[in-house]
Amino acid sequence: MIIQTIDYRKGAVKIIDQTLLPDEERIVRLTDVKEAAEAITCLRVRGAPAIGIAAAYAMLLAVEQLLKERLIGGPRYFFDRLDGARPVDAAGIGEIEIRETLVAARELISTTRPTAVNLFWALERMSSVAESAAPGPAALCARVAREAFAIHAEELEKEYAIGMNGARFVRSGMNILTHCNAGGLATAGYGTALGVIYTAVEGGAKIHVYVDETRPLLQGGRLTTWELKKRGIPHTLLCDGAAASLFSAGRIDAVIVGADRIAANGDTANKVGTFGLAVLCERFDRPLYVAAPWSTFDLGIPSGKAIPIEDRSADEVTSIAGKRIAPDGTAAYNPAFDVTPADMIAAIVTERCVIERPNLLKIKELTTA
Amino acid sequence: MIIQTIDYRKGAVKIIDQTLLPDEERIVRLTDVKEAAEAITCLRVRGAPAIGIAAAYAMLLAVEQLLKERLIGGPRYFFDRLDGARPVDAAGIGEIEIRETLVAARELISTTRPTAVNLFWALERMSSVAESAAPGPAALCARVAREAFAIHAEELEKEYAIGMNGARFVRSGMNILTHCNAGGLATAGYGTALGVIYTAVEGGAKIHVYVDETRPLLQGGRLTTWELKKRGIPHTLLCDGAAASLFSAGRIDAVIVGADRIAANGDTANKVGTFGLAVLCERFDRPLYVAAPWSTFDLGIPSGKAIPIEDRSADEVTSIAGKRIAPDGTAAYNPAFDVTPADMIAAIVTERCVIERPNLLKIKELTTA
Repeated sequence: MIIQTIDYRKGAVKIIDQTLLPDEERIVRLTDVKEAAEAITCLRVRGAPAIGIAAAYAMLLAVEQLLKERLIGGPRYFFDRLDGARPVDAAGIGEIEIRETLVAARELISTTRPTAVNLFWALERMSSVAESAAPGPAALCARVAREAFAIHAEELEKEYAIGMNGARFVRSGMNILTHCNAGGLATAGYGTALGVIYTAVEGGAKIHVYVDETRPLLQGGRLTTWELKKRGIPHTLLCDGAAASLFSAGRIDAVIVGADRIAANGDTANKVGTFGLAVLCERFDRPLYVAAPWSTFDLGIPSGKAIPIEDRSADEVTSIAGKRIAPDGTAAYNPAFDVTPADMIAAIVTERCVIERPNLLKIKELTTA
Repeated sequence: MIIQTIDYRKGAVKIIDQTLLPDEERIVRLTDVKEAAEAITCLRVRGAPAIGIAAAYAMLLAVEQLLKERLIGGPRYFFDRLDGARPVDAAGIGEIEIRETLVAARELISTTRPTAVNLFWALERMSSVAESAAPGPAALCARVAREAFAIHAEELEKEYAIGMNGARFVRSGMNILTHCNAGGLATAGYGTALGVIYTAVEGGAKIHVYVDETRPLLQGGRLTTWELKKRGIPHTLLCDGAAASLFSAGRIDAVIVGADRIAANGDTANKVGTFGLAVLCERFDRPLYVAAPWSTFDLGIPSGKAIPIEDRSADEVTSIAGKRIAPDGTAAYNPAFDVTPADMIAAIVTERCVIERPNLLKIKELTTA
């Protein structure tokens, strides 16, 4: 079972609007690149892998829009993931015009989440295949479509592989704590940290998941609980500050989280609050697992100290669900991420391999292998 | 400067309605014992010392009500804190009737916050002086009034003493983290943990206070920020999960918190989230100070393991400010308190003394001295 967080069907990008969850499960069709850009900016689509796919699909949507405008009387739509990259009769349109459309789309989408590594990775991949496509507008369109669908399919495959690689750490009877949402909603539809849990459960493990609500944006309370409920996996929500007392009572066996960026030495940036869980794991001798695609490694960054941390708006702290909760003018400390040193991580689980007790040397060997 | 959280003026209990803070600073006059009981139940008054004072004043209010009902044409009000315990001409009322009123009031108030130690301590103190009062209705009324005003005055004196005893730990230039609200709003008007900070600042120390928002009920975000703003003390709000990254960046020099109950060996129950800060203090070699009146010791409880922890409603976690944030039916772990072992506490600061590195022996010596 996967959650169809994002898809490209019948000439439109389809997403679950995550800003409405868990109250409402609304599927939104995005029919032009501006709408797609807005959906990324406003976190209707969120989570590193999902943003990458959304960016690729937004580029394809720009081409779709151009074809629709120019080929009046043509087909109702040009691209659909289930059809794959069928040839498109784009004879009436110049190749240069398509390239210009792609450049403009890339520019617009780049502004949506300027610190999202996957966004730029996907845009670069789309631009690069466009540049090297066989001559002619039809070939260019087909190449762009093929790449967008490939990005989506590859991401999903990676998630299944991460799940298989990580499930070895999950035994029946375990109580597992997770933070934020590293599930199907954040990805191609299966998940990274939650993917590990899903694979274990699909393999018959009976586990209980404790879910940090993850202030300020409550991805745990809103999204992870929603996914676990949909899958019928027993779970309990808690405020972030209550995790320590669960550890103290011996009620947590392991912590599994995703990652936003991993440095060359294994230091891991993830949603703020993760490092506090790492400190608890250390004190109570419990393993902390990080599950993330290999592409999360940023090998140009030597250690966690060099990972840039996005400081987000004070409003996210001083308001909840639109209601102000602190006095006017209250200053807030609101980093998006914190950094967990590699030596506090039991294993980094990727689609390629599991790196137990990660360090610079182990990661270097795997990169050059 | 104190915050007049609670007072007894001109025949009524006056409180700041804390459920409306920080949006609105509304002073509410409670004119009968039912209103006073409702105010305690609904957390319009909260914080262990403030609840104790409110309970005593609610008992006095019951007597005031009886006098008003029976002595038609008598004075507009009978008791006022600023007048002290003036003699009351209660000749027209039987002593038994006054005693019955006090018993009924005690019964009603007992149901408001059944786990609040200070509530029962204050009720017991009021009942006890009523029993041993000199004969005659006038003497009984005066004795009850004197005791209620004494409880209030003594609490405030204790807070000043706690502040003086704790201020030695606060040096200019320090960044201090606090959790929940242990300030004037929770007490007779000055505070315990915040009282230490206030005394230091009044003595000229320039400090910066980091404030955990303290989910689920956000006492830090709503109340502590409000107090600090009123006093002009520089402060920054953060989500509870972000504290670890502040420690990691070397931006916290000490943590000061209040306490709800302290066992005979120094193990301390305080608002959930405190223990997680203790773990961070341990890892980053920073001191954790607990500031609380001596009455917070529950010497009948040998250690933290025996402190009963109130499990509160899941709704506090699954909703914020009346808005549901988790899917319907989501289970939640919502303990009101957690327990910090004595060996993780640098010092317990009371009005009587400072107990550095508290343990059973030190506390026993102080109790029997």
